[in-house]
Amino acid sequence: MTLHKTLLPAAALCAFPMMGMAQETAAPTMDEVGPYILTTLLFLMAGFLVFFMAAGFAMLEAGLVRSKNVAMQLTKNIALFSFAAIMYWLIGFNLMYPGDSWIIGGWVGPFFSQTVLDPVGVAAADADLGYASVGSDFFFQLVFVAATASIVSGAVAERIKLWPFLAFVVLLTGVLYPISGSWQWGGGWLSEMGFSDFAGSTVVHSVGGWAALAGVIVLGPRIGKYKDGKVTPIPGSNLALATLGTFILWLGWFGFNGGSQLAMGTVGDVSDVSRIFANTNMAAAAGASAALIMTQVLYKKVDLTFVLNGALAGLVSITAEPLAPTLFGALWIGAVGGLIVVFAVPFLDKLRIDDVVGAIPVHLFAGIWGTIAVIFYGEASLTTQLVGIAAYGAFTFVGAMILWTILKSTFGIRVSEEEEINGLDLAELGMEAYPEFSKG
Amino acid sequence: MTLHKTLLPAAALCAFPMMGMAQETAAPTMDEVGPYILTTLLFLMAGFLVFFMAAGFAMLEAGLVRSKNVAMQLTKNIALFSFAAIMYWLIGFNLMYPGDSWIIGGWVGPFFSQTVLDPVGVAAADADLGYASVGSDFFFQLVFVAATASIVSGAVAERIKLWPFLAFVVLLTGVLYPISGSWQWGGGWLSEMGFSDFAGSTVVHSVGGWAALAGVIVLGPRIGKYKDGKVTPIPGSNLALATLGTFILWLGWFGFNGGSQLAMGTVGDVSDVSRIFANTNMAAAAGASAALIMTQVLYKKVDLTFVLNGALAGLVSITAEPLAPTLFGALWIGAVGGLIVVFAVPFLDKLRIDDVVGAIPVHLFAGIWGTIAVIFYGEASLTTQLVGIAAYGAFTFVGAMILWTILKSTFGIRVSEEEEINGLDLAELGMEAYPEFSKG
Amino acid sequence: MTLHKTLLPAAALCAFPMMGMAQETAAPTMDEVGPYILTTLLFLMAGFLVFFMAAGFAMLEAGLVRSKNVAMQLTKNIALFSFAAIMYWLIGFNLMYPGDSWIIGGWVGPFFSQTVLDPVGVAAADADLGYASVGSDFFFQLVFVAATASIVSGAVAERIKLWPFLAFVVLLTGVLYPISGSWQWGGGWLSEMGFSDFAGSTVVHSVGGWAALAGVIVLGPRIGKYKDGKVTPIPGSNLALATLGTFILWLGWFGFNGGSQLAMGTVGDVSDVSRIFANTNMAAAAGASAALIMTQVLYKKVDLTFVLNGALAGLVSITAEPLAPTLFGALWIGAVGGLIVVFAVPFLDKLRIDDVVGAIPVHLFAGIWGTIAVIFYGEASLTTQLVGIAAYGAFTFVGAMILWTILKSTFGIRVSEEEEINGLDLAELGMEAYPEFSKG
Repeated sequence: MTLHKTLLPAAALCAFPMMGMAQETAAPTMDEVGPYILTTLLFLMAGFLVFFMAAGFAMLEAGLVRSKNVAMQLTKNIALFSFAAIMYWLIGFNLMYPGDSWIIGGWVGPFFSQTVLDPVGVAAADADLGYASVGSDFFFQLVFVAATASIVSGAVAERIKLWPFLAFVVLLTGVLYPISGSWQWGGGWLSEMGFSDFAGSTVVHSVGGWAALAGVIVLGPRIGKYKDGKVTPIPGSNLALATLGTFILWLGWFGFNGGSQLAMGTVGDVSDVSRIFANTNMAAAAGASAALIMTQVLYKKVDLTFVLNGALAGLVSITAEPLAPTLFGALWIGAVGGLIVVFAVPFLDKLRIDDVVGAIPVHLFAGIWGTIAVIFYGEASLTTQLVGIAAYGAFTFVGAMILWTILKSTFGIRVSEEEEINGLDLAELGMEAYPEFSKG
Repeated sequence: MTLHKTLLPAAALCAFPMMGMAQETAAPTMDEVGPYILTTLLFLMAGFLVFFMAAGFAMLEAGLVRSKNVAMQLTKNIALFSFAAIMYWLIGFNLMYPGDSWIIGGWVGPFFSQTVLDPVGVAAADADLGYASVGSDFFFQLVFVAATASIVSGAVAERIKLWPFLAFVVLLTGVLYPISGSWQWGGGWLSEMGFSDFAGSTVVHSVGGWAALAGVIVLGPRIGKYKDGKVTPIPGSNLALATLGTFILWLGWFGFNGGSQLAMGTVGDVSDVSRIFANTNMAAAAGASAALIMTQVLYKKVDLTFVLNGALAGLVSITAEPLAPTLFGALWIGAVGGLIVVFAVPFLDKLRIDDVVGAIPVHLFAGIWGTIAVIFYGEASLTTQLVGIAAYGAFTFVGAMILWTILKSTFGIRVSEEEEINGLDLAELGMEAYPEFSKG
Repeated sequence: MTLHKTLLPAAALCAFPMMGMAQETAAPTMDEVGPYILTTLLFLMAGFLVFFMAAGFAMLEAGLVRSKNVAMQLTKNIALFSFAAIMYWLIGFNLMYPGDSWIIGGWVGPFFSQTVLDPVGVAAADADLGYASVGSDFFFQLVFVAATASIVSGAVAERIKLWPFLAFVVLLTGVLYPISGSWQWGGGWLSEMGFSDFAGSTVVHSVGGWAALAGVIVLGPRIGKYKDGKVTPIPGSNLALATLGTFILWLGWFGFNGGSQLAMGTVGDVSDVSRIFANTNMAAAAGASAALIMTQVLYKKVDLTFVLNGALAGLVSITAEPLAPTLFGALWIGAVGGLIVVFAVPFLDKLRIDDVVGAIPVHLFAGIWGTIAVIFYGEASLTTQLVGIAAYGAFTFVGAMILWTILKSTFGIRVSEEEEINGLDLAELGMEAYPEFSKG
C-alpha cells in the first residue's frame, strides 16, 4: 500500500483498461486474462481457507488431550505448519511437480530446487494464462501438505517428544508426501493409470493416516489407556475448543475441495466449484448426523466427540470425488464415513492402537472409503482405486515405519514414564496451558 | 485436483479463452459470462462466511451457559446445522422457492422435491447467465436457515432435551421457515405487497426469535432463575468463548448482508456490496458502543455480555436494510438496536421469560426494530412493514407453539429436575465439556 | 435479498450484459469495469480478513493475561474496535486521505468531514473505474486503524482503567494515526521523499508499538512483576486461546498485506497479490521457527509464547515489503523478526518496561526491522527509511506521552492497588470471565 487512490501515479492508472479507451492500447482483454485472474483468486481464497485448517487442527487436538499436554499440542501444531512451509518451499513443491523445475527455474533440478515465484508485476505475455499465478498455486499446495502433518500430530499426542516429532514432520513434508503426491498430482504413474482422487482422500488424508498409524504403533499406547485388558477412556479437556476446531476444519474444507477444481474462469468451472461446496457441506452434515444417530442407538447417549469426528469423516469421505455425486450421493457417502468412525474407534482400541484424537478412523479409514466411493459417481474402476490405495498405503506406512524406527533408536521418540504422567507441558516446555485452572 | 497445471490435458486447456485466440471459437465472452461467474463467487464467499456463523453461535452459546451444560450446547449446535442442511435439501429449498421446482427439476412438485444442482461442467448456454449457479444459490440459502435454528438453540438452553429439540429443528428448517420465507423471498404475497426485508431481520432473525420465544414459554424458566420473586443472575461459564463467538458472527454478517445483494457482476452491484459491508460494520460498532455506554450509565459498570449482545443487535437491526442508509443511518439504527438489548433483558426477566443467551432481545426485538427502520431510508411504508412483522410473528409463534406443545405432551421436552441440577452434559451425553476444571 | 432469482424484475435483469446481446446497449464492457469490480472485491475480501484480526487480538490478549483480567481484556478489544470504527468514519478517513474530501464530499473540509459512500447502484460513469468503490476502500482502511489500537490494548493490560483507555483509543484512531498515516499513504511528505512501507510495518505496527510504549511507561509495571530486583514471570491463563489468536492474526495478515496491493484487475496485480500471500506465509513460518529454535538453544526448552510472538514478529517484519522479496528473502527477514522477539523481551524486562503480551517487541521492534529490511529488496534508501521510522516514532511517542499524561493527571489511568490484585474484571466490570473455574 504505497499510495492511496487519489495519488496513484499516472503510470499506474494507465495499467487499467479504462472506460472509453480505444482498442489501440495493446492491453490484454478480460477474455484473455479473466480466467487467469479468477483462477488465481480461487487459489488465494481456497488457500487462506485451507491455511486456517491449521488453527482447526490445533483447536481440535488441544481440546481432545488432557490439560497437562495442551501447550505441547499447540506448540506441535504451529511448529509443524512452519516447518512444513519451509520444507515444501525448499524441496517439496518441485519434487511433487517435477515439471515445474523446468518452467519456473531452480537450483539443481527437481531435487533441492527452491520454489521461484512469478516476477513482480508479471506481464500477461509472460504468465501462464491457461492456469494461474505460480505464487497462488504454490500457496495452495503448501497448505495441503501441512494438513497431512497435522493429522499425525493428533494421533501421537500425549507421549511423543517435540523434536523427534518435528524431525518426522520435516521428512514427511519435504520428502515422503511430495514423492507419493507426484504419482497422482504430479502426473505420475497413478494418474496415467486412471486413479481418481480429486482433492486428496488418499493423497493427503490417508497418507497422513498411514504415517500416524506407523507412529502410534512404534510409540505404543499411553500409560493407563489399556490396563488389565480393559480400555480406559481418557476424556479430552476442552470440548468447546474441539468443537470450534471441527467447525474451522469444516470451513477450511470448502477451500480444500473447492480449490481443487483448479479453475474458476468459466461458467462450467465456477458452477463446478459450487457443486463441490454444496456436496462438501452435505457430506459433513451427513457424517455428523450418522454418528449422532448411531451413538444414540449403540450407547443410548449421544457422544459429542463422535459427532465431531463424524463430520470430519464425512468431509474426508467426499474429498476423493466432491464434484460428480448428486447431493444425495454426498449424503450417503458422508454418512458411511460417519458410521465408519463410530465402529472403528472401538475396533482400534481392541487392537490396543491408541490414537488420541481419532485421526486414523477419520483420515485413514474414511479416506480409503472415500477413494473407493469414487466408483459410484466418477469414472474410476475399483481395481485402479484399490491399486492407488495400496500403493499409497505401502509406501507411506513402510516409509513412516522406517523413519519412526530410526528416530526411536537414535534420539528416542517417547518421553519418560514420569514425564508422561506429569504431562508433556512441564517436561518439554516448562509451562502450562492453563496454569490457573489445571488439575492435570 | 486430478492433475497439476503442467499436465492439464489439452482438452481442458481449450476451455480457457486464451490470449491471442481468434474470435472464431464460440467460447462465451467475459461480457457474457463475467456477471454469472462473479455473482456465483459472491454466493460462495458469502456462503462460507455465513456457514462460519454456525461456529459463532456455538461459541457464543457455549460461553453463556454454565459449564455443566456446555457439551450439550455444542452438540445441539453441530447437530442442528447438520439436520438443517439435510432438511433444506430434502424439502426446504424448493418449498421456499417454488419457481425452482420447474426450473431445476425434482421429484413430485414443490413439496418433497429434493434440490438438484447444475450438471457437472454446465455449458454457458445451459446456465442461468442472468443470475448464478444453482449450487452456489442453494448453499447460500442453506446457511441462512441454519442461522434461524441456532437462534432457538441459545434461548432454550440448560433445560431442554436433545432429541425433542432436534425434532423441532427438523420441522422449523424443513417446513415453517421455508413456508414463511417464500412469502417474501419466494415472490409471495408479502413481496408483492411491497414488504421490504433485504437480508432477513424479519424473515430470518425474528422468525428465529419467535420460535425461541414459544419454546421458552412452553419450557418454563430454569430452576433457580426466578426464586422468591427475585431474579438470580446465572453467569456464563466462559466469556472468552462468548466474545469469540460474537466476533465470528460479526464476520459472518458481512456474508449474510453482503451476499443478499444477490449480484456482483456490475459496477453498481459490487459497489452496493461495499456499501453493505461498511454499513453492516458501522451498525455493529454502534450497537456495541451504545450498549457499553448505556450499561455504564445504568449500572455504573460496563457489562461485557450486554456489549456482545449490543453488537449482535446492531447487526440484526441493519439486516432489513443494509444498503440504503448512509453510514450515519447505519450508526443510529445500530445504536438503537444496542439500546433495545439493554432494556429488553430486564424486561423479559420481569415477565419471567428465561432466555439464556439473550436471543429474543437480539434477534426478535432488534429484528422488529430493523424492519421498521427500513422506512427511514428504504421505500417501504410503515403499514406494510408492520403487516409483514405481524404475519411472520403470528405464523411462526403459533406454529412453534403448536409444535412445542405437541412435543411436550408426547416425548416431553424438559429434563428432570435432578438432571437439570446435575447438568445436561451428564444427563443427556454422559460426558463433560471441561472434565478437569468444572465445578459445575 | 429482496427477491429470488426467478422473480427478479425485468429491469434488474437488464442490468446484466446477457449472452448474445448486441453491442447496441451502452452497458460497459468487462474490459472497462472488470478491474474496478475485481479490486473492489479484493478490498472486501482483504477487509473481512483484517476485520477478523480483531478477534485474533482479543483471543491472543485474553489468553496471555491472568484469568482475573480476561473479561476486561475482551471488553477493551470489542470496545476499541467499535470506537475506532466510529472515529475513523467521523474524522479519520478524510483526515488521512485529504484528497477524498474533495471527491466524495463532506461537512466542513478535511476535518470533521464524515465519510460519504458511493450512491446506491452507482453507475459506471460515476464510479472511479481506475480504482475501487469508496465503500470497499473505506472498509479496508478502517480495519487497519483498529489493528493499531489493538496493539496498545495488549501492552497496557492488567492495570489500566477502561474509560481512560477508550479515551486514548478515540484520540489515537481519530487524530494521531490518521495524521501520521497521511504523511505516507495520504500522499504526504514521506511518500514524496520516497519512504517505502507497503502495508504498514511502520505506519500501522510501529505506530501502535510507540503508543503502547508510551502507555506502559506512564502506567508503570504491574504489581509484583519486578520485585526485589528480580523479574517474576506472570504466565498467561489460556495458551489455547493465545494460539488461536495467533492463527487468526496470521490468517488476517493475508488480507492485511495482500489487500495493500490495492489492485487485482490485471495479471500483474493478481500475481503480485499471490507473491504477497506466499511471502507473508513464509515470513510467519520463519519467525515462528526461529523463535522455536532460539528458545531451545537459550533455555533448553521451547517456549510457546515466544513461538507465537515469533510468528507475529515475522509477519510484522515482512509487512513493509511483502512483494519484492524472494521466498528466501521473506524467510530470512521473518526469521530475524522472530529472533528480535526472543532477545527483546528480556531486554525490556531489564528496563522494567512491563509489556504484558509482548506487543512492543512484536510490533515496534520488528516493525522497525521490517522497515529497514526494505532496502534489501525494495528501492528505498536506508536514510529515507530511517527518517520515516524516526518521524513516526517522534510524532507518535510524543503525542501518546502527552495524551497518556493528560489522562493520568485528570481522570487517572490506573486502577487502585487493591483492584489490581483482585483483578480488573471485578473492579471495572463486576463480572468474571470464567466464574466457575478461576482461582485468580
